[in-house]
Amino acid sequence: MATEYKTQKGQDFDRAAFESLVKRKNFYWQSFEPHGAVKGLFDYGHPLATLEAEFLTIWRDHFVRKERMQELKCAMITPYNVFKASGHVEKFADFMCKDPKSGEILRTDHLIKDVLEARLKSDKEARGEKLEDSSEADAKKKKKKVKAGAVVATKLDDAVREKYEFLLATLDDYTGPDMGALIKEHDIRNPVTGNEVEPPVPVNLMFATQIGATGKEPAFLRPETAQGQFLSFQHLVEYNDNKMPFASASVGYSFRNELSPRSGLLRVREFLMAEIEHYVDPESGKKHPKFKQVRDVKLPLLSRSIQSEGGSQPAHVSIGEAVDSKLVDNETLGYFLVRIALFMERIGVDAGKLRFRQHMQNEMAHYAADCWDCELLTSYGWIECVGCADRSAFDLTVHSEATGVPLHVREVLKEPLRIQEWDAQLDKKKAGPKFKKDASKVQAALDKLDQDFREKLSLTLDKEGKIEIDVPDMETPKIELDKDIVKISKETRTVSTREYVPNVIEPSFGIGRILYSLMEHAYWTREDDVARSVMSFKPTVAPIKVLLVPLQKDVRLMPLVEEIEEKLDERHLSYDTDTSGVSIGKRYSRNDELGIPCGITVDYESLEDGTFTLRDRDSTKQVRAKLDDILDAVESMVKGKETFSDVQKRLPAYEGKEEKEEEAKAA
Amino acid sequence: MATEYKTQKGQDFDRAAFESLVKRKNFYWQSFEPHGAVKGLFDYGHPLATLEAEFLTIWRDHFVRKERMQELKCAMITPYNVFKASGHVEKFADFMCKDPKSGEILRTDHLIKDVLEARLKSDKEARGEKLEDSSEADAKKKKKKVKAGAVVATKLDDAVREKYEFLLATLDDYTGPDMGALIKEHDIRNPVTGNEVEPPVPVNLMFATQIGATGKEPAFLRPETAQGQFLSFQHLVEYNDNKMPFASASVGYSFRNELSPRSGLLRVREFLMAEIEHYVDPESGKKHPKFKQVRDVKLPLLSRSIQSEGGSQPAHVSIGEAVDSKLVDNETLGYFLVRIALFMERIGVDAGKLRFRQHMQNEMAHYAADCWDCELLTSYGWIECVGCADRSAFDLTVHSEATGVPLHVREVLKEPLRIQEWDAQLDKKKAGPKFKKDASKVQAALDKLDQDFREKLSLTLDKEGKIEIDVPDMETPKIELDKDIVKISKETRTVSTREYVPNVIEPSFGIGRILYSLMEHAYWTREDDVARSVMSFKPTVAPIKVLLVPLQKDVRLMPLVEEIEEKLDERHLSYDTDTSGVSIGKRYSRNDELGIPCGITVDYESLEDGTFTLRDRDSTKQVRAKLDDILDAVESMVKGKETFSDVQKRLPAYEGKEEKEEEAKAA
Repeated sequence: MATEYKTQKGQDFDRAAFESLVKRKNFYWQSFEPHGAVKGLFDYGHPLATLEAEFLTIWRDHFVRKERMQELKCAMITPYNVFKASGHVEKFADFMCKDPKSGEILRTDHLIKDVLEARLKSDKEARGEKLEDSSEADAKKKKKKVKAGAVVATKLDDAVREKYEFLLATLDDYTGPDMGALIKEHDIRNPVTGNEVEPPVPVNLMFATQIGATGKEPAFLRPETAQGQFLSFQHLVEYNDNKMPFASASVGYSFRNELSPRSGLLRVREFLMAEIEHYVDPESGKKHPKFKQVRDVKLPLLSRSIQSEGGSQPAHVSIGEAVDSKLVDNETLGYFLVRIALFMERIGVDAGKLRFRQHMQNEMAHYAADCWDCELLTSYGWIECVGCADRSAFDLTVHSEATGVPLHVREVLKEPLRIQEWDAQLDKKKAGPKFKKDASKVQAALDKLDQDFREKLSLTLDKEGKIEIDVPDMETPKIELDKDIVKISKETRTVSTREYVPNVIEPSFGIGRILYSLMEHAYWTREDDVARSVMSFKPTVAPIKVLLVPLQKDVRLMPLVEEIEEKLDERHLSYDTDTSGVSIGKRYSRNDELGIPCGITVDYESLEDGTFTLRDRDSTKQVRAKLDDILDAVESMVKGKETFSDVQKRLPAYEGKEEKEEEAKAA
Repeated sequence: MATEYKTQKGQDFDRAAFESLVKRKNFYWQSFEPHGAVKGLFDYGHPLATLEAEFLTIWRDHFVRKERMQELKCAMITPYNVFKASGHVEKFADFMCKDPKSGEILRTDHLIKDVLEARLKSDKEARGEKLEDSSEADAKKKKKKVKAGAVVATKLDDAVREKYEFLLATLDDYTGPDMGALIKEHDIRNPVTGNEVEPPVPVNLMFATQIGATGKEPAFLRPETAQGQFLSFQHLVEYNDNKMPFASASVGYSFRNELSPRSGLLRVREFLMAEIEHYVDPESGKKHPKFKQVRDVKLPLLSRSIQSEGGSQPAHVSIGEAVDSKLVDNETLGYFLVRIALFMERIGVDAGKLRFRQHMQNEMAHYAADCWDCELLTSYGWIECVGCADRSAFDLTVHSEATGVPLHVREVLKEPLRIQEWDAQLDKKKAGPKFKKDASKVQAALDKLDQDFREKLSLTLDKEGKIEIDVPDMETPKIELDKDIVKISKETRTVSTREYVPNVIEPSFGIGRILYSLMEHAYWTREDDVARSVMSFKPTVAPIKVLLVPLQKDVRLMPLVEEIEEKLDERHLSYDTDTSGVSIGKRYSRNDELGIPCGITVDYESLEDGTFTLRDRDSTKQVRAKLDDILDAVESMVKGKETFSDVQKRLPAYEGKEEKEEEAKAA
């Protein structure tokens, strides 16, 4: 897409400058650098580690506390059997092709996509068409690049071009062998070496390890936190006194052994997630008790139908309308989309860079009813940051089947129900002597028959005097039963409880991706000087709240600095004191890059009259007041109760000559 | 030790009753139960997960914010080379013995200890001695047990008894082969099967995995968070503008592949740690700038000398005295001991169940200068919860040596220093033609020579006109240099910076162990009814802050309940509402088990006059006031500004007849 990514001030986003700031200010770096950095593993320095802690505090407040969820934390090291049952052993894999000469391992879908897209691009060049949306200058630049790379623009037949376009649009539907066939048919090679590649093989993306030293307990690092929550379901529902619906939530690490990680923090090998599992009665219509409170909230929804018509502009629709029209499958899913949007607003995500994109049918798991991703726009394009899926009863069912342990809700019915059912019983006195120890197997086989089949058998028994059933574990698996040894009849019984496996709606947050997007959204540069960058984190999430600067390096100012430090401590406000010798403008500037929202200056007037200036990072405006008023204002902004505009209304503005001059000099 | 563990009210601690509460109230359980629970892996349910989150908020406030540390988070998956350099590949292992018949794997030191202790016990029995500190009843019980187990009490020779006692006291000093010899000499067998065991072999306790699919990137799950911090040292010190001292801190998971985990949460396979690495200039005397603020704080110190005299009672000494007398090695270590004690007090650890125990010489790593553990008393005995060690410059040095990457501080000297040094230089014009491409290797070999050796060589050169040096990489590793090709002279140069590897003082918190101890310290039972248990968590850390109970299940009370729920939400206070049909006394009782500190009752007087009662969990006393006053009191207690006693002083007491009656009935 040629739409250039812009900062919040509408400036062209300079990723190199942004990355330089992020590195300079220790937001993050690749892990284990001295031993040779490992791809896909990152360390967070103080600013980003603290931003993450603030994020989690707000997340817990917004979801766990406010929605009265049960928080839980589950083990990361997970026995093999758990992921065998969940399907991850079989399906959590990417297809890979090996370049046999270079040893390089390529993700098959990426390989096909990269090669076909390059051919289409080359075709356009050859046909002299202007690239979609690109400016003259862009086109020239690209042409030059192509020449430099010595790739000759090659025209394609119309039929071939259409075929490629169709393949790219439907690639997600292809199996490994399908992709293998494609590679042969279209002579797709490693674009770097030009070598042919080996056929695609699935490579599981879980990190394998083993528990203990016996070698008998293979295990994986979990690729999602969800399975631990599902396996704890009986604990959760009992804690909730069997009341439904309710949700569990877990903040924890997951792991994905990416074979060729790229895009910095966006695709990493270990990552923090926050996953909510909301359990509902499938017969409740998935209503949500608080849906009426959010009905009128409008969300940017990029529906399946807009996408299939090739559109990329979301419609702004109220969630009430969206659920009424079945665009969003149910109230619970709709309620969570709103809560997610409100959370993003609360932490300072740019509302213009957020949309909810519905999954296309072929993107969803076979069992999913509906799925919406909250996507944030970054310089890498739209990034999936929260997945919000309806997982139906799939997971609880497969674990229950694999282990024989019930994972369900037992609802006490308000009125007992009388139900009629076909019952098939062996006559124990006769069956015992005939089948001996196998009698219970025969009865078990009868118990497994469904109602329709039992009814059919009862007719056969009436007509022919005997029936035949399968009893798998016996020597002769077909067993004949005549009417004096088995009785099939319609019985009435009273039922006072109902057992059901709940459906699960799962909002799943990728925290690293959100934090990265938030950093890009917060970044801009001063209009008068692109070298002066600012990270506009909201005071509520900013890693450090206060910058304390004495006007000059002067011992007379230090007692006041220490007094303020003590008072900030008493209020539990984090601060940095910058007493270095450089100009005050430079000191403000370099701390704007850390996103410190409030600056308190100690100057010579402070010595005389006990007043201090408070500087706003974003506007660089200042107010001046007594210390306690300044600190009250800071605390109020940090708690999200006031903005600097509010503070400006009640505290007098200040145009300090020295600071202004200094700041101008630094610019 | 026969000292029975008591609750905070001096009651005998009933571990079975405590564990039943912990299970019933979902504090924690073994992970993956439906698939067969895995030993050493635990899930935390809502109460404990929330307690942990509160713990971390306070920890970050108490250490990271207050001490202005740099928080960072490092990857858990760690390449092989990192732990090769740190020594973990070689040394992070336990010696194990296999029982070849049963296949059981036993930790060698535990095996020896268990067997020798059993023999000593049996000896005491046989000699009819009363067991140390045990009551008559205890002794009888034990005798019975011995008989039931059909173990015949066996008397030992005095020499053997003394030998055993000596072995037990010094076992930590034994290597694997030493222990193997001991096992043969004293015929130590698997006490369960009576089988002889195989000789001890070291088994590494790190979980192994691999990065990517090539098999070329072996890795481990880290067993401590420290190494990632050390490897980030250059980032940290630059962020700190090269100022010293400073600290980094990291909260994260570590892993230990225990072969036979036991003792519940106290010895687990994955665990959350909080580790601080405080970097100091080794030439600074490890002074701490804030030490004077804590000088007079008294701590219970169990020194090495008390221990070696067989004592177990700590001395209560002011940290100032302790550092002055060198009992505690330095100010920085002392400062952290105080901060740890204050933190434990802040989260509600029982001060009478805390002590600092100094490591014996043989317990410490060879490089450590001093080490103190903060231990908490539990029903399992004294448990190491925080280790506070001086790691010297060990880790930074080994990584720097293994990688060639400097991990040091570059201090700009206030006054440049003039230093005299022996300099050894090849004459380049002559060396080039003679050694060709190897000339630089010869110069490098000269550069590596230390000052003393250079001085010696200069004398030889003067006397004999030539010297001989080793140049490892050359064909002939011994190289002769005569005086017209090499010059060795004393040169004076000016030095304006000093480079040094800092020493590291490391307080390391085992969070699961502290949380477990805190739960035991919080637990007690009502005097009038042992079935009514209470978890007395401080309001600041309690997982849920408010219990809201309508007096009866009556729709008329519900609008008030909902109004309070909204107001609690506005104040970001967590709550549970218990509207079940059981008596109010029962409802209070069962929520006391969760440790909810504040109970708000909605009754018929509330409907009339808008007043509500506030009940204190610990005393069951109540006050009554208007809603906003009640909520102000709750908020004030939750923030740690007031206790219930303070609230009682300003709000009127209430003796509600209904509640009192109900509560009495429930008892």
